[in-house]
Amino acid sequence: MSTSPAKSPMRDALVAAAFQLFLERGYEQTTVDDIVKTAGVGRRSFFRYFPSKEDVVFPDHEQALAQMQEFLAASADTDDPLVRVCDATRQVMRMYADNPTFSVQRYRLTREVTGLRTYELSVVWRYEKTLGDYLRTRFADRRDGTLRANVVAAAVVAAHNHVLRSWLRSGGQGDPLAEVDRALQFVRDTWNPAGAGAEDPADRADEDVVVVITRRNTPMWRVVREMESSLGDG
Amino acid sequence: MSTSPAKSPMRDALVAAAFQLFLERGYEQTTVDDIVKTAGVGRRSFFRYFPSKEDVVFPDHEQALAQMQEFLAASADTDDPLVRVCDATRQVMRMYADNPTFSVQRYRLTREVTGLRTYELSVVWRYEKTLGDYLRTRFADRRDGTLRANVVAAAVVAAHNHVLRSWLRSGGQGDPLAEVDRALQFVRDTWNPAGAGAEDPADRADEDVVVVITRRNTPMWRVVREMESSLGDG
Repeated sequence: MSTSPAKSPMRDALVAAAFQLFLERGYEQTTVDDIVKTAGVGRRSFFRYFPSKEDVVFPDHEQALAQMQEFLAASADTDDPLVRVCDATRQVMRMYADNPTFSVQRYRLTREVTGLRTYELSVVWRYEKTLGDYLRTRFADRRDGTLRANVVAAAVVAAHNHVLRSWLRSGGQGDPLAEVDRALQFVRDTWNPAGAGAEDPADRADEDVVVVITRRNTPMWRVVREMESSLGDG
Repeated sequence: MSTSPAKSPMRDALVAAAFQLFLERGYEQTTVDDIVKTAGVGRRSFFRYFPSKEDVVFPDHEQALAQMQEFLAASADTDDPLVRVCDATRQVMRMYADNPTFSVQRYRLTREVTGLRTYELSVVWRYEKTLGDYLRTRFADRRDGTLRANVVAAAVVAAHNHVLRSWLRSGGQGDPLAEVDRALQFVRDTWNPAGAGAEDPADRADEDVVVVITRRNTPMWRVVREMESSLGDG
């Protein structure tokens, strides 16, 4: 939305002043005038960086969204799309993990102010849409490709937010990057149960594994015949 | 949120008047005073049914959320939790499908008004949370139960919204209930690939099926020994 520089000393000063005031007197009780006065800058400087008071609460998302789009756009056709969206999502977690104090302060603020919670939902939706757009392109020639893209994007975001919320609730304890890797691996295992690419029949031919499913009361000679014919295909 | 009766002639009249005005002059240009005047009722009547102007745009969600909670609470321990959340989600689609004209009008409105889009995101989040709460209880004793619950809830909601959005974009053409059944089946197949319950080890013991996975170069005698020991467990 904003095309103003994402990082600058004045922008940082505005964010710091805003959070100081939000914590001291509450979000609703703080005006943009209070923020610029504390930061020692003019009112127009605020709006140069932030379209509204809500935006100063989430100062890094525009840049993170732009980075995610770039990262996905730089993807090669040979990249596993599921791995790619998981890596892109991990970068969002890194943004939170890089600044635990700020992340936890903001989390507490969003718990208290309904308007910020809905704002946050719209940010989450934009990440999900960015991942979904990429997956839709990558799954374009698959059966139910669009459905699959939307469901996978939602699952990836849910796994990320599962870890993020629990880390923020704990006050920023532990290693959220290790946790998000575990959670994203859960999602990857869901769609690629036997490892990367295993779901794709084109790859399956290369695998050195035979699976036999039989009823418990099948005579052994029939099982052996079935196994021999499967092994013989190799 | 609201505990006022979900269905009443006056409530219906307020919704009808509101949508008439939203379509005629736009959402932002319509005040609550305009709505009550057109409906021929007093201002207090409006707020008896709707906390705000935004709420009149989504008059059925509170009831649908309450119904979903009831439906899930009435679930038996023997119900497949994935089937249960899919059935609960299908009921939300039925609410939209029962009134295509209204659903499409509202969709067009939410495309135009940012505030309504974020309101809608918060409604979607409440459905997801309701499904997630239920799944968290059902998956409580599973490894990664909470993560699994959150991811599955997000996937179910994404599948529903995938069908809903495409139906609304088409202007309400086709059979969204048949489509949502297909999309929800995709989600069920994701977690229960070999049919209901196959994923759950507790159920697997009852099944009359043996699965053997072996490397292609395994000698047959080892395969037979493995099969015999598996069959012998029965």
